[in-house]
Order: sequence, then structure tokens, then C-alpha cells
Amino acid sequence: MTKDIYLDFSCDYMEGAHPLILEKLAETNLVQQTGYGYDSYCKSAEEKILKACGVPEGEVFFLTGGTQANAVVIDALLASYQGVLCAESGHISVHEAGAIESNGHKVMALPHKNGKISAATVEEAAASYHEDGNRDHMVMPGMVYISQPTEYGTLYSLNELSAISQVCRKYGMYLYVDGARLAYALASPENDVTLKDLARLCDIFYIGGTKCGALLGEAVVIPKKGMIPHFFSIIKQHGALLAKGRLLGIQFDVLYADDLYLHIGEDAISYARRIQDALINAGLSVPFNSPTNQVFVTLEDSLKEKLEKNIGFSFWEKPDENHTTVRLATSWATREEAVEEFERLLK
Amino acid sequence: MTKDIYLDFSCDYMEGAHPLILEKLAETNLVQQTGYGYDSYCKSAEEKILKACGVPEGEVFFLTGGTQANAVVIDALLASYQGVLCAESGHISVHEAGAIESNGHKVMALPHKNGKISAATVEEAAASYHEDGNRDHMVMPGMVYISQPTEYGTLYSLNELSAISQVCRKYGMYLYVDGARLAYALASPENDVTLKDLARLCDIFYIGGTKCGALLGEAVVIPKKGMIPHFFSIIKQHGALLAKGRLLGIQFDVLYADDLYLHIGEDAISYARRIQDALINAGLSVPFNSPTNQVFVTLEDSLKEKLEKNIGFSFWEKPDENHTTVRLATSWATREEAVEEFERLLK
Amino acid sequence: MTKDIYLDFSCDYMEGAHPLILEKLAETNLVQQTGYGYDSYCKSAEEKILKACGVPEGEVFFLTGGTQANAVVIDALLASYQGVLCAESGHISVHEAGAIESNGHKVMALPHKNGKISAATVEEAAASYHEDGNRDHMVMPGMVYISQPTEYGTLYSLNELSAISQVCRKYGMYLYVDGARLAYALASPENDVTLKDLARLCDIFYIGGTKCGALLGEAVVIPKKGMIPHFFSIIKQHGALLAKGRLLGIQFDVLYADDLYLHIGEDAISYARRIQDALINAGLSVPFNSPTNQVFVTLEDSLKEKLEKNIGFSFWEKPDENHTTVRLATSWATREEAVEEFERLLK
Amino acid sequence: MTKDIYLDFSCDYMEGAHPLILEKLAETNLVQQTGYGYDSYCKSAEEKILKACGVPEGEVFFLTGGTQANAVVIDALLASYQGVLCAESGHISVHEAGAIESNGHKVMALPHKNGKISAATVEEAAASYHEDGNRDHMVMPGMVYISQPTEYGTLYSLNELSAISQVCRKYGMYLYVDGARLAYALASPENDVTLKDLARLCDIFYIGGTKCGALLGEAVVIPKKGMIPHFFSIIKQHGALLAKGRLLGIQFDVLYADDLYLHIGEDAISYARRIQDALINAGLSVPFNSPTNQVFVTLEDSLKEKLEKNIGFSFWEKPDENHTTVRLATSWATREEAVEEFERLLK
Repeated sequence: MTKDIYLDFSCDYMEGAHPLILEKLAETNLVQQTGYGYDSYCKSAEEKILKACGVPEGEVFFLTGGTQANAVVIDALLASYQGVLCAESGHISVHEAGAIESNGHKVMALPHKNGKISAATVEEAAASYHEDGNRDHMVMPGMVYISQPTEYGTLYSLNELSAISQVCRKYGMYLYVDGARLAYALASPENDVTLKDLARLCDIFYIGGTKCGALLGEAVVIPKKGMIPHFFSIIKQHGALLAKGRLLGIQFDVLYADDLYLHIGEDAISYARRIQDALINAGLSVPFNSPTNQVFVTLEDSLKEKLEKNIGFSFWEKPDENHTTVRLATSWATREEAVEEFERLLK
Repeated sequence: MTKDIYLDFSCDYMEGAHPLILEKLAETNLVQQTGYGYDSYCKSAEEKILKACGVPEGEVFFLTGGTQANAVVIDALLASYQGVLCAESGHISVHEAGAIESNGHKVMALPHKNGKISAATVEEAAASYHEDGNRDHMVMPGMVYISQPTEYGTLYSLNELSAISQVCRKYGMYLYVDGARLAYALASPENDVTLKDLARLCDIFYIGGTKCGALLGEAVVIPKKGMIPHFFSIIKQHGALLAKGRLLGIQFDVLYADDLYLHIGEDAISYARRIQDALINAGLSVPFNSPTNQVFVTLEDSLKEKLEKNIGFSFWEKPDENHTTVRLATSWATREEAVEEFERLLK
Repeated sequence: MTKDIYLDFSCDYMEGAHPLILEKLAETNLVQQTGYGYDSYCKSAEEKILKACGVPEGEVFFLTGGTQANAVVIDALLASYQGVLCAESGHISVHEAGAIESNGHKVMALPHKNGKISAATVEEAAASYHEDGNRDHMVMPGMVYISQPTEYGTLYSLNELSAISQVCRKYGMYLYVDGARLAYALASPENDVTLKDLARLCDIFYIGGTKCGALLGEAVVIPKKGMIPHFFSIIKQHGALLAKGRLLGIQFDVLYADDLYLHIGEDAISYARRIQDALINAGLSVPFNSPTNQVFVTLEDSLKEKLEKNIGFSFWEKPDENHTTVRLATSWATREEAVEEFERLLK
Repeated sequence: MTKDIYLDFSCDYMEGAHPLILEKLAETNLVQQTGYGYDSYCKSAEEKILKACGVPEGEVFFLTGGTQANAVVIDALLASYQGVLCAESGHISVHEAGAIESNGHKVMALPHKNGKISAATVEEAAASYHEDGNRDHMVMPGMVYISQPTEYGTLYSLNELSAISQVCRKYGMYLYVDGARLAYALASPENDVTLKDLARLCDIFYIGGTKCGALLGEAVVIPKKGMIPHFFSIIKQHGALLAKGRLLGIQFDVLYADDLYLHIGEDAISYARRIQDALINAGLSVPFNSPTNQVFVTLEDSLKEKLEKNIGFSFWEKPDENHTTVRLATSWATREEAVEEFERLLK
């Protein structure tokens, strides 16, 4: 290895935006528009997204980041005495600095497998609450939160998602899907959950922009318009309303023109496969197969220290004293040359 | 068995107050006093409690219930970005309807053994946060909550408590002890933790009144006066300030006169032992030995249904499809005749 | 004047409870009862209260204090984006240490006259919100809070209350009445608002116990049962649920037996009139006539200093540099001898 | 007038960003950078801002909008029992949908003159709290919030700001300045408050980007580094942390290169003067002189309806039944041709 090379796969938000987005921002820059999301770009983006989701009668709100979207959506839907069920590894449970609790709601962590919870686990938690004689002293599960892909890069299958959806409806819980990296799910050959499936099976979900080609932005999709009365005010109250909403509208308008969003993750997926293959071929331990843009590998700590001179990855966990599991991520902006270089390095 | 007998051991708050308390309430009823805890009874009770705790320079605040005390104390001490570590079975984690989260703080549940967490578990959680490169995206553990006795009736030994206290000081976390049933710890022959130990090893704790002889009331002890600036206003803001604070002061003044509180749980402890022995002698499965006033037994469901015609107990958990673990509790008000009757019934 | 006499009229919560309450507490002390308000005394008290209010199909929840009742009720009913309209002088606006805001809701203060707001003022505030093009960036008024009697001891007439009620219904706002001192309204000859009127015109109100003969306790009356789903859990989450709910049930059961509550304030009212007359006869400046148990007088500061050696009153406000307005309060526990002594002193 | 012309002066956020910002975004688009504000652009922008403010040892955090900045800063600094003093017309009091209260803090509205509060008013409010015998039942003022320029476009002079600062220090209150439109203050000939004055007299303030040339973004300046421990986590918890912090860093790096920010508002100011002059020359009623980019005029309603066919302005208030006061705003993006057209129209 050599000091001259540094290939950064530490995350999927290291670059700016897809070039088409920058172009459109420049092109529309001096067009005067109303603020707060009432501009024509937001309107156009909303229509495109709803069409892609098969719910033209729905509505879309644009927010600036994933933690914000999670906090606003969950707070808007839960009653004060309700909490949200999610995987122990869920972003809201671990990496949002307590944003959900700061709005007053308990995150009710469930055991998971590679980031996924099962319908059975959800059912058990819901049933256990409803059957408990002391349930009125307890937090009622009012929502199930899952991420697609999960924090482990894994995917819920259509069957799995349908089963969870059924349990949610049985127990009167909202189903909310965090799609921070949704483009990488949609671009994965292993994926069988479409935007239309999400709109049909979930009560609310967001389509991630920040990690999928935008400078920032997440599109919250509500298939049934009006499900959250006064959502605009709720967004404002959370400090989540942009004066220049156009910035979000323009970006999603570009991402949803010509199916860009459906394809923007494709290279990232194929590069991630090549990276995973290179790791496996080098005899390294890949703890589970990832179908999306995040790849995990468990390294002896000495090897890890050696590798990180040339490769950027991020810490995931320490399975034991001498090993570390790390994550490598590709994105829409990953260059093929970097992947080739990576393959050469690993040999 | 017979329909005529019903022995209620379902909880330890089924009666009113110790007779001496009622007497004192009657005796002082028309004495005019300042409100909001500035009355002479609160002052006197505070002095007695602080003396018993060996911290005459400390301060005491009287609140009306356990969940309220927990919510107010935890909210008063934690910064917005901090959470509280506690046993998965801890009262704040399970049975306070999300009171801690409703004030914005994550309850960070830890594995436990019969309701107790170990210093090692606490250390691991604290270290894990502080060593994590992403810790600024996570909830910082700012406090450890334990209950003495625990929700399982078990006791922390002085060694165990000292070890937890040491970890808390190492990581700058407050140690808070919920003493809802503290009288039953103090009266247990197996207990080696005194009030003075609590005042020395914890930052704050409360001495339970509601379950230990009072009509209502919990005495929050702060060994270092002034540790919580404007605590009075914080209590008021939580709706936890009584206009007639005298009601709490009078009760604790009685409970702390002549060591009443130290002895008030003694009969309950000996009766609980007799109940546990009766269960064991009847060949029933007692999952673990309880040193205090709560006794647990696992019953076949058919036996449970039969027993509950004559005996009041409360649901604890279902270890499997056909069995139920239930809890029986004694209290300062339990009559010996009821225990004798119970022993006869079990034979 | 003499140093030997001290007549304390500083507030209406200086004594314990009505003797009948203490008797009943003693009498029922060892009767075993279920906790959390499911006891037979709470049930009986609820029935009596609902009957007195003419809404047998309603429901009653017992809480421990006024600030707590206000905080819990308001938080239970308002959506996150709503605030509560009230007089600038309203208890929730001034003297609850921000309890309403701490639950996330704006207190929207309105101009008042001697503690009362008018239907016109309420209408203007509601209309102003609904007509504002930027209303989605503003806090929506979702409730009107008034107190009967007000903090100034004044009373809403039936006409005034009806008019406010009508405005509330027009704009979809809840009407909530804080009855901390309701017994003193009901006992006032100037009052024409009955419990049945309250139940008919308000959505929710509480009947004060703490200042009206109880040791503590406020009875929240909901004329339409089920209006607040899961109110039990909401109460618990606010730390406002008493384990020994019986303590509240017993007291209100006594207060609502034999119309005790309707009459308990009568002496206080007649004593307050005598105090006010004595003040006026002494040539002192009474800023407005109070029909209930609170009397106000504006004193030159030198006179105030002289008087406070023998008389306890509480600071109200400083109308100018050299004068202070103070409040004197009578209560169910005020002794006629004290009033006579006061009359002698003033001469 | 003619239907063909429409001159929109309804607000100052109708366009995108200053062209230099778009250029820099394009230029840096594929440079890989760390997330969450740890990128080199944020670092560079922070250095430039701190230098301009004369506090090289301070720190800067970049947020996405004004309401968000206000909510995060105020929540980070106030204790739970504290509120924030501000003008009744202050943005946090009127137009943030209760964002401050939703974090638990009372907005304590003060009378103002054209959007400004005086040191005397602030002192009175603070003194009134501290002298009140019941202050522990009240919300403590912990901060003063002002905006520069105010919502009315008016400016605090250096003398006025110094006086407020002195009162704040006397009573231990933070002084926080909302600089959403700060560029228009800095570019006003009437302004005598520099960035260095702000850094010297305030505890914290933000430099507005959204309304001053950026796509979005506000730079929170903390002159004393470390004043808010764990501010990063607090920002994250409020959902206010951007993954691609570079987007904010790049923009402020451009705005603070070559004194761009100091000059970016100059045209807007001179255009606003011309608009105001045109209104006055047309014999219309300008309620007060605005030194910055917002101009106010009171119109007969019939004239208003006529004008709004060709001119975009925003509703401000209705001084009486037949008149409306409206606001016209210029910005860095206002074209001189539009102003000329406006002048022609008014003639």
C-alpha cells in the first residue's frame, strides 16, 4: 500500500448534489417564488412524487434532514401517552441524540436481525401491552418505525413489510418508514418493495434526498391527504420550515423527473457489490450480505489500523477485544476509479 | 377452600395511614400554618430526616407520589441531552406511563438480575457512550436510577451500592435511589444499607411514605443543600407543589419521631417470610428469595384461578403458556390473622 | 393596637380539613381498597358530584392541586400547535411557574377587568387568529381558561359565562373553568352560576377541594364521558396519579354529602363582607367590591407597615410608589372571633 | 395602471442565492468532505465570521432557519424555570407557531415602540420578578431577545443596545440578538451597531443568511467558546443538524469573503428609501420611517385593492375598519428596474 492513495468510503454524504440539481438551481435562481413550500417547484415535485407512489390524492411535505423528519412525523402522529416501536438499532433509538424523547415520546426498542424487526416481534410487543392489566400505567405503542434500507443496509421484502403492516392495522398503530437511503433500496436487484407498495402499506414515509443526490432534503409522503391536521404549523413549530422552500422543491423536482431517483443509486449498488466481493476474495469476514450501498466487514484491529491509512470507513461495533466491524458506503457520487483502486489495494 | 375468606395481598397501599399520623392530623388541624412547605411541621420533619441520614446540612422536599418524585428529580438534574440508566424492570422504565420521556429524557434500560443492575453493567454503558466516536449523536447517560428495595423486592448490598456509586462518580453521573418501599428495606434482616449510607453514596434519594405508613407523600433528600437551584420553582412547574404542604410535613414528622420509620416495616417483613415459607412448604415454585415485603410465586394457571377466589395477588409475568408468576405484598397494615389464615389455606 | 393580637387573613389554606373529613378518614382507615382511584369512595364521590352537576353520565377524576389540574387538563386537550386564552391575571398566566408552557403550550394573555375577561375580548382574539393570512405561523387558540371566582374574587354571571361559552363553541375552542375556590362562588349571594350551569356551558371544569375544606384535592368534572381518551394514562404520565386515590375520594364524598360543599363557604363569605365593611368604614380604599372570600384594600405604605404587626394579609400589587394593595382572605375555617377582633382593631 | 406589470415586494426571500454562492457550490460540488459541520468550508467560514466580529476565540454554529435558530438557542440557554423577555411584536412571540413554548419556555411579551423595547422596560420586568414575594411561583426572566433590525425594520442604536446589555448583566439574563436581516442593518446609513459591538454586548446572536443572499442558513455566533456545553448534541436533538453541513459552510464562506455580507444589503436599502419616498410623495401615509429594507404604508382599503393588482406587498395590520397597513420589502435581489417601475406607477 502507499501513502498517496486515500479512498474515502466512510459515508454517503461526502459530496454535494447531483449535477442536474445544481443546474436547475442556477437556472431558476432569480425566478421569484412564494415562500414556505407554496412555490411552483414544490407543487411540481409533489405531483411527480405522488404519481410515482400511485397516490395522486396524497400530499408531500419537504423537510431538511432525517432526524428532523423522524422527530416531526412521530411527534405529529403520536398521542402524548404513546411511544414508537423500533429496532434497537433503529436510527431514532441510537443516533438522534434523543430527539424523539425530547418531544415526549418513548422509543420502545425491539430485538432485530441485521437491523430488521419481524411482524412477530411487533405483534408480541403490541399484544403484551394490550393484554397487560397494568397497561394504563404503561406507554402504549402507537407506531412502528422501520427504515428501508435499514441501518445495516438490509431490506424488508414485500412479504415482510405486508406482514408488519397487517399487525399495525390490527393494533391501530401507524406504520412509518424512514427512507433516508431509499434510492439505494429501489436500485437494488434484491428489492421487491416499490414506492407504490410503500404508499399502500404504510401510513407515512419519507423519501431521502440528503443521501441520495440532493444537497439536503427529505420528502415526507402522506398517502391520505389531511391525515395530520395543521401539519404545516407543526413543522413550523419544530423549526423545520424553510422560508425558501423552493430549495427543496427544485431538488425533488429534478430527482423525480425522468425517473432519476429510481436510477440514481444503481452505480452505488454495483460498486458496493464489487467492494463486498473484493473483501470476501481477500479472505476477510463479511458478517452478512448487504443488498444495498453499505458493506460491512470485521477486521482484526491490526489490519484495521493498516487499512485505514488508505481507506476511509466508519466504525460499526466491536464484536470482541481484538476485532472491529466497520462499514464502507458507496453513493451516487462514488467514482468507478475509486472502486477499481480499492480492488487493487485489497489484492 | 371457602368463598367466605378473602385475603388481599395484592399490594401495599390498600389501607390509609398509620394511626399515629391520623391522630396528629386531627390534633394539628386548626393550627394556622404557612403554605407550600414553609410550615413548621415540614421544617421539623426535615430536621428529623436529615439527622437520621447524618446530613444535617442537607435539605428535604416533600412530594406526593413516587412517579411524581421520579419525574421531578430526574428532570431537575438532567441536561436536555442526557438520559437516565436503569434496570429494564425499573419503575421509570415500565410503569410510569412514559413520565420521564414526557419531560424529554430517554430511559436507558439495562439488563438486570431480579431487579438489580450491577456496577459492571453501569460501567459498560457509560464507557460505551464515552468511547463511541458518534457519541455526540447519542444520548449521554447523566444519571443512574435504582430502587431500594427493587421492584422485585430485592436489596442492593452496601458493597453493590458503593460500587455503583463509584462508577457514577467516575463518569460524572448522578446516583438517584427510589425508596418507594424503603421502610421495608430498612426493616429487613438482610439489609446492610442505612439511611446514612444512602446519603453518603447517592446524590439524591427519596424516602417513601405512600407505601410505608402515610396517606401519601415521599421525602426527597438532597444531602448537599442547593444542589438543585430553584428546585421549589421546578416542583411548582411540574404541578407537584401542595398548597397545604403541612399534610406531608405532619406525616413525615410522625414517621421520623421515635424511629417509627425504621420499625414500621418489621411486621410486614416477618409476615412476608411466613407467606413465602407457606408457599414453599406447599410445594409451589418461588422463583427467587425476596428479603422484603414482596413475595413471588409461579403457579399453574389452573391453580392460580382456584387460589384467586380466596387470595388477592397481582400479576407479575407469564414465564410460559401455562404458568403465571404473581406477587403477594404485605405492608405495615397487614394483620397477623390474615397471614395465619393464609397459612391455613395453603395447607 | 397591641402586639398580643395576630389575625391571619393572608390566605385560605392555612388550616387542615373540615372536621367531618378527618372523621371519615379515621373511620375508613383500615378498610382495604383498590388503588389509583378505583376505590369505592372515589366511585361514590363521583356519583354525588355528577348528580349535583346534573350530568350523571359524565366522569370525574381526582387530582391533588390546582396547578396540577390546570396543567394536566390543558395538556390533555390541546393539540401541540394550540394555546390557551386567559386573563393576563389568570393563575396559569402568572402563578404556575410556567407549568402550561413546560408542557408545550402558549398561554395567550388577554386584557381583563378585575380578573374577568369578556366574550367580546375572547371573540376578538379568536377572530383575529382565524382571519390572519399568517395564522399557520401562529399559535391557534384552542381553549379558553377562566376561573370562577377569579383571582380577584370576582364572579362571572350566568350571562357572561353563557356568552363566553357561545364564542368558544363558535370557534371550536374548549371552555375550561378553574374552580379552585368554587365553594366561595356557590356560597355568594351575588352568584347565579350553578354547578349545573358549569356542566352545561363548559367542556371541563374542576371543583376545588384544597381551598374549600379538604386537606388537598380537586375534582375534575368531564360532563361528556370519554371526551379525553386515556386520561388515566395522561394523569399518570404527569405524575398526578395517587396510589391511595381513596384519600381524595373520601374527602369529596364527605364534601358532597348533604350539600356540605354548597354551604361550606357561607361563613367565609359573610366574614369577608364584614371585613370589607370594616375597611370601608375605617375610610380605607377598597378598589372594587368582592363578592367572595377575598377582599382587597389599598393602603398607604406607612399604614400597611403598622397594620401588618397585627394582621396577616398578602401583597397584591403596588398601584404607586407609596401605596400597596393587599388581599385578605377568609375561609371555611375562619373563626368569627377573629373577624370581631379585626373589626375592633380597625376602629 | 396596467395589468401587464407586477412588481413583487411582498418579502425578501423570493429568489435563490447570490450568484457567487451558486458558483462556489458548483465549484466544490465533488470535493469530498466530512459531514455535520466538520468540513473545511464551515471551518473557514467560522474563522472569517469570528474575525469580522472581533472574537477570534469564539465559535460559530450553522443552522438552517430563523425559527430553528431561535428555538435551539433559547432552549439551550434557559433553565426549565426560565422564560425569555421580548417585544410583543417579536418573531418568537408571534410568528413561530409556539416553537419556544413547545420547548417548555414562556415568551414574556413586553410593550414596544415600532418593534423596539427599551432598557427601562426590560429593567422593570426583571426588577418586578425579583422583588415579588411570590417569584418562586413565577417564571424567571432568563434572557432578553431582540431582533436587529426589528420586525418593523427599525434599528437599535449602539446606546440603546448598550443599555439593554447592561440591564441583562445586572440581572444575570442572557442577551440574544436575532439577526435574520442583519445585512440590512449593517448596510443602513442610520446604523451605528457593528458586528464587533454585537459580539461585545450580546451573549449570543445569529447572522441571517436566508434573507441576506443565501439559499438558507443562519450563523449562530457565540463570542465565548464553550458557553453552551454539548451544543452539537442539542442541535442534533432538535433535528437541526445537517448531514451536509458544507452547504451552510460554503455559503457563509462566500458571504464573508471580501466583505460581501457588509455590502450585500446596500442596494436594498437605497431601493427601500426610494420606495418610501415614492409613497410619501404620492401623499400616502407612512406610519414611521424605516431605516432598512422594509417599508410600511397605511392605505385606504379601496386603494389597497387597486394597488395590489400591480404590486405585491404583505399584510401588516388593520389600524381601523377602512385602512390596512402593508409592508413592502426589498432585498439583495431587487432589480433597479422594478423600483423605477414602482416610482412610475405611484406617480
